[in-house]
Amino acid sequence: MARVVNFNAGPAALPLGALERAQKELLDIEGSGMSVMEHSHRGKVYEAIHNEAIGLVKELMNVSDDYDILLLQGGASQQFAVVPMNFLPPGKSADYIQTGGWSQKAYKEAKLLGTPRIAGNTEQDKKFTRIPKQSELDLDPNAAYVHMTSNNTLFGTQWHDFPDTGKVPLFVDMSSDIAWRPIDVSKFGLIYAGAQKNLGPSGLVLVIVRKDLVLAGRKDIPVIFQYRTHAESNSLYNTPPTFSIYMLRNVLAEVKSLGGLSVMEKRNREKAALLYDALDARSDIFVSPVEKASRSTMNVVFTLKTPELEAEFLAEAKKAKMEGLKGHRLVGGVRASIYNAVPREGVAALAELIKTFKA
Amino acid sequence: MARVVNFNAGPAALPLGALERAQKELLDIEGSGMSVMEHSHRGKVYEAIHNEAIGLVKELMNVSDDYDILLLQGGASQQFAVVPMNFLPPGKSADYIQTGGWSQKAYKEAKLLGTPRIAGNTEQDKKFTRIPKQSELDLDPNAAYVHMTSNNTLFGTQWHDFPDTGKVPLFVDMSSDIAWRPIDVSKFGLIYAGAQKNLGPSGLVLVIVRKDLVLAGRKDIPVIFQYRTHAESNSLYNTPPTFSIYMLRNVLAEVKSLGGLSVMEKRNREKAALLYDALDARSDIFVSPVEKASRSTMNVVFTLKTPELEAEFLAEAKKAKMEGLKGHRLVGGVRASIYNAVPREGVAALAELIKTFKA
Repeated sequence: MARVVNFNAGPAALPLGALERAQKELLDIEGSGMSVMEHSHRGKVYEAIHNEAIGLVKELMNVSDDYDILLLQGGASQQFAVVPMNFLPPGKSADYIQTGGWSQKAYKEAKLLGTPRIAGNTEQDKKFTRIPKQSELDLDPNAAYVHMTSNNTLFGTQWHDFPDTGKVPLFVDMSSDIAWRPIDVSKFGLIYAGAQKNLGPSGLVLVIVRKDLVLAGRKDIPVIFQYRTHAESNSLYNTPPTFSIYMLRNVLAEVKSLGGLSVMEKRNREKAALLYDALDARSDIFVSPVEKASRSTMNVVFTLKTPELEAEFLAEAKKAKMEGLKGHRLVGGVRASIYNAVPREGVAALAELIKTFKA
Repeated sequence: MARVVNFNAGPAALPLGALERAQKELLDIEGSGMSVMEHSHRGKVYEAIHNEAIGLVKELMNVSDDYDILLLQGGASQQFAVVPMNFLPPGKSADYIQTGGWSQKAYKEAKLLGTPRIAGNTEQDKKFTRIPKQSELDLDPNAAYVHMTSNNTLFGTQWHDFPDTGKVPLFVDMSSDIAWRPIDVSKFGLIYAGAQKNLGPSGLVLVIVRKDLVLAGRKDIPVIFQYRTHAESNSLYNTPPTFSIYMLRNVLAEVKSLGGLSVMEKRNREKAALLYDALDARSDIFVSPVEKASRSTMNVVFTLKTPELEAEFLAEAKKAKMEGLKGHRLVGGVRASIYNAVPREGVAALAELIKTFKA
């Protein structure tokens, strides 16, 4: 069967070139006579891939030497706990901004470990349809950090400008929009991102964290959960998820060959505009619940005016080889996730379907 | 290049059939038009693979319904911390048996969390060359659990009979010898194993744990680290490492097609005997430091009488397309890891090299 257009929210579409390279090398990488999965993580072949992956993150995201780049396991969900374990000591408070289900989960884990504060919350009628304005935030200048989620996969909202947190380090879960465009990493204390949207397969989480914070982190928690452990060992303290890191390398090598993150941004903005323009033009049938200024370039969320129309629309899309369009089980509706690896042609085809559906 | 004989200690050799299947399906699994890595973990294609993998563990290891089978991230090293987080509440003690570097690491993590006790230790001159006898163990009948490592990759020792811990649940890190033979799972409270030796690629850890223990585990630790979280959600609480679990499925399907764990045991005993017999026959040059009754069937560790002979031997092996024979960086020497997927012919070739080297 031909490859479909994959609108999955994550795990999600990967660049075809990255997959083809993996397929070609699967039984024998670089003439070594074994699969990358069978190489020791202490051997030359794997270590070169490991370092190339980290080097590509550094280069493409323009990360300065003031930061450690870590490749860890457990996904963003584990970071929800590991971040406060390291940086929320007893007696300190941390600010959490709530813009969706993931930031709520991060707050809940922090609450089991210390005293987080809610510093902003756009929930209304159990939905989050917008990003808060700076003036709506109630930031504590003595907080250990401010935590937020840059893009909300469930509700289709995204921060287009990051809040000013003064001297308090800003910690951001960028799982669903990391590397969608260039950012100024120096504005952040810590960035983390599950790989399974823009970076690679699941089972890997990227952490970019200021070195002075790593050094100041708690030392009385298990060694495996201290960021310093992984910073000091170049993410080779224990066996890393070698195949996932190999795929990260393949994905980032593709991004680089296409021209880097500025090119990704241009493409992603064009893809998002195709869909939002189509939805706005068809407001007779389609509903875009998100405030315009908060619309996500990664997850385009919409509904149709009746459940019957929605089912019919999803069926037509499926017939046209478009997959993964059903909204998250908690919120329903339709969701088109259009990460870096989703080709423009596929998005254009979906836009065309929106324009012509019952027209 | 032809595939080499891979004696890596982990990540290690995988069954060729499991890799070939992955290669064939890498761009399009089951006619879905996408890679298994691109499938949602909530979709039908992936969920069937996930459940098949868990079902194969249950079937091949004959696990009763009294146990949960969990597929987690972070490797055995993370379990060193997660086990005491769940099961070592303040005021309780747990017994740790020390037979190598990994059991020492497990003890150190437990010490950061509670009050573990050393209940046995075979270290002598910074080496561990044997497994303790039951009579040497100092077990506390009130311990929360007894923790041990079934096979010691660095030193090449293995427990051939498990200790009697009375009513205290026995927790075993089986990372390097899980599924090498049939075991009676009902004797254990908890078993864990990083996948990268006998089960699949790195980035995945298998946990088999008694349901009553899961229920009794602490509830005041982060949700992501509570075993109940993963037990209740069939290891789909957060995005699992889907490709690693897919490979686990492929590996276990191969093991099943070969006849299951009894067949593995027969093969593994034969492979180990080939090497130990050769080493014993060549005691003029080769030194096997491990007590005979404690010899591992998975990691055959030896040295040669001089560093020059050792270098020469390793060079000859490399010429004969044998890889991964250098001992662990902490202990040196030679180590042949002969897990389930290492073919008998490769082991026979190494045995022949031992027999004929400088003969």
